[in-house]
Amino acid sequence: MKKLEEYVQSIPDFPEEGIIFRDVTSVLQDPDGLALAIDSMKEKLTGIDFDIIAGTESRGFIFGVPVAYALHKAFVPIRKKGKLPRETISESYDLEYGSAVIEIHRDAIKPGDRVVLIDDLIATGGTIKASIRMIEALGGSVEKIVFLMELAGLKGREQLKGYDVESVIIYEGK
Amino acid sequence: MKKLEEYVQSIPDFPEEGIIFRDVTSVLQDPDGLALAIDSMKEKLTGIDFDIIAGTESRGFIFGVPVAYALHKAFVPIRKKGKLPRETISESYDLEYGSAVIEIHRDAIKPGDRVVLIDDLIATGGTIKASIRMIEALGGSVEKIVFLMELAGLKGREQLKGYDVESVIIYEGK
Repeated sequence: MKKLEEYVQSIPDFPEEGIIFRDVTSVLQDPDGLALAIDSMKEKLTGIDFDIIAGTESRGFIFGVPVAYALHKAFVPIRKKGKLPRETISESYDLEYGSAVIEIHRDAIKPGDRVVLIDDLIATGGTIKASIRMIEALGGSVEKIVFLMELAGLKGREQLKGYDVESVIIYEGK
Repeated sequence: MKKLEEYVQSIPDFPEEGIIFRDVTSVLQDPDGLALAIDSMKEKLTGIDFDIIAGTESRGFIFGVPVAYALHKAFVPIRKKGKLPRETISESYDLEYGSAVIEIHRDAIKPGDRVVLIDDLIATGGTIKASIRMIEALGGSVEKIVFLMELAGLKGREQLKGYDVESVIIYEGK
């Protein structure tokens, strides 16, 4: 059986020189790759008690919803500013140049809700850190954070000290 | 058992007066609603022979990937211009003011591939029509198009004559 790593196409010097882009769409393009990716993330949640999976727009949706479906959990989307129709709370995070704002529905997390965060990739960890702040501000707890891929060279994990973090594939570089 | 319609929150006069916004995030926020939505879309594909599910950014990802997972199919994302890392083809479609461009990876659809399109909502049908043009330009065939919700008053279905189109929930208005 092919390993998950073999489904990931690596694109050197994209979007800029020195960066190897790990392309998750190449995994999804094969039915076996897609199933293996979802099942591998699902396995990381064995033994974790939780109610809700949250994922950020838009690649967090790709992995978060099928894992929620497979484990019969709720899914809560975290979106860019202005896209959610009901009352929201928001957080900003730094980008290389400037900053961005993400939002979550205020009624999506209730005090005591146990939440798992899912995303395709951890790089510097800025989006995930902002997501955690919103979940905790609404009274939820982050029980685990699961990534499909981790770029260890960008040290995003250092932003997530004190949380249970696991990645299916860890790349040493950036 | 609750019906799927009962999970959909309707927000009157959003984003503008006279429009009733049908909020799909309220369905996902309940584990039973999420499961029922995915299972209802999956059922619409009973007896359809196909290889690939394609979905447009970003709410097409929410429903397309879990249905692909449940039926062991590939998923091909259709994204806004500039977001896909490999070689793409593109199509533009009209918005109320101006136009937008969407893209698909050139190697994602091969001649003879049988494709199903999945999206959360059909309104005027512009995005789906542009998606069909790209799939067919790459030599694929569109075997079926499944929406969770249809706003029949916007007549999007008239754009899709000749295709097998089904929606789980049909609202008469806009």
